[in-house]
Amino acid sequence: MLMKRRSVRNFKTDEVGEDVVEKLVRAAANAPTGGNMEPLSIIVVRDAERRAKLGEMVGSQPWVKNAPLSMIFCLDFYRLKRWAAASGVDFRGDEALSHFLIGYADVMCAAQTAVVLAEDLGLGSVYVGTIQYVADEVRPYFEMPTHVFPVILLSLGYPKTIPRGVRKLKREVVVHRETYRALSDDEIIAAYDDKYGSLDENAERYFERTFAEAVEADKQDTPGWVEAYREQMKTLAIKNNAEFLFKLRYPSDRMVELKAEEIATFKRAGFDCFGP
Amino acid sequence: MLMKRRSVRNFKTDEVGEDVVEKLVRAAANAPTGGNMEPLSIIVVRDAERRAKLGEMVGSQPWVKNAPLSMIFCLDFYRLKRWAAASGVDFRGDEALSHFLIGYADVMCAAQTAVVLAEDLGLGSVYVGTIQYVADEVRPYFEMPTHVFPVILLSLGYPKTIPRGVRKLKREVVVHRETYRALSDDEIIAAYDDKYGSLDENAERYFERTFAEAVEADKQDTPGWVEAYREQMKTLAIKNNAEFLFKLRYPSDRMVELKAEEIATFKRAGFDCFGP
Repeated sequence: MLMKRRSVRNFKTDEVGEDVVEKLVRAAANAPTGGNMEPLSIIVVRDAERRAKLGEMVGSQPWVKNAPLSMIFCLDFYRLKRWAAASGVDFRGDEALSHFLIGYADVMCAAQTAVVLAEDLGLGSVYVGTIQYVADEVRPYFEMPTHVFPVILLSLGYPKTIPRGVRKLKREVVVHRETYRALSDDEIIAAYDDKYGSLDENAERYFERTFAEAVEADKQDTPGWVEAYREQMKTLAIKNNAEFLFKLRYPSDRMVELKAEEIATFKRAGFDCFGP
Repeated sequence: MLMKRRSVRNFKTDEVGEDVVEKLVRAAANAPTGGNMEPLSIIVVRDAERRAKLGEMVGSQPWVKNAPLSMIFCLDFYRLKRWAAASGVDFRGDEALSHFLIGYADVMCAAQTAVVLAEDLGLGSVYVGTIQYVADEVRPYFEMPTHVFPVILLSLGYPKTIPRGVRKLKREVVVHRETYRALSDDEIIAAYDDKYGSLDENAERYFERTFAEAVEADKQDTPGWVEAYREQMKTLAIKNNAEFLFKLRYPSDRMVELKAEEIATFKRAGFDCFGP
């Protein structure tokens, strides 16, 4: 159990039955939640037009449209604030980093519970985290009030193809006994070389390991990702796996610059948890 | 499956076998992770002295000491930064809110995968989120380098008693179809009244539902929580469930004030992800 899970991005058109959806939402809503506060809302999206629109919003990820079921897991302080106000007291979680961090953890516990149960029921699923960056578009489209934030999108369906698993770090790199064991530079480089393999080999297989969604998008109706990335790799003279990740895929300076935009997105959604 | 899960805080002294620990860490390390970045470290804590010390650090939660196994799930940017530096490139996830939020989600996916598998293997578990607030103490004790942050503690063992489940919101309050459905004030009040019940009834049962850890701490070797809370309820003239939560258990103004301390704790750990 749970050893073979991988993200699935290629789904059959078969519907996911309502009984299965019920099981998923029941399990998710029964996940642990700090202080039993349940700052969670789940929006179940089955309508084809809405799924297509959602897929566009999160940036040409065709599996969102093609998966018969999507679930948007939201951090919901709106309900708690309304309840508190109606009870004559303030809930100020939208201004408190601790409430945000625990609530965000609660939302992820619910989502991951759905992922695990889905696998047990023969479904495949894929997380789409970019929904956070397009919250300004997603929130009104799904009629989310202020203080509701879309933390993660989960798209599900019956797998058409099961991808080869992406390689992971060796377990002893991630798991420590009693205290943290810091690796030497040599051990670290060996660990990542083992995980990612060589840049020089067959590009398709390299991308399958490092950027499975680009390969899958190419196969579905959004071709050109892998080719575009290969071009950029030449332009930027990418020499190793770390450069691929932090110069091209997640350019470090750009990721830091985005912070101000992200904080502004949260603020527009009513979340003023960050900053002093 | 997954319908009956509840937090367990009362454990038998029976050891958790090494084969079981291996299953838990394998499943956790195979959980989904954004961009397959794996910014995760898991510290497995079995040593009795360390467990006792950890229990003290997180604030008199006796189940941490009494559970034979604890797992500390850490957000680990240290390894990625070391690898990037050794490869001639910067990884600046410690300054980027998006890397923090996705990495934090990854850590929770790993932890929740362990929770689900643990239940399947007959173990009980409880999350302890307060580990975040005492990161300044926890980090050196477990020899965590800069850029490693303890996101959540999971204590596990074979259940001695299985608690009655805390009540949850009705599913239709949490689950929405196609778009978010905002409830009326009356619906919201009814939903929480249904969940928490009346303040006036038997205090023990009330606390079991609203604050199960206080009841369990009283039964183990940290008595007095429930009595202290009952005294404070009188002093503050707590009239309803929302007041109990947001005036007493999580006082709203105090939670907001804590933000500066929390941001400082993250900064000392090398995480400068928040604020402008």
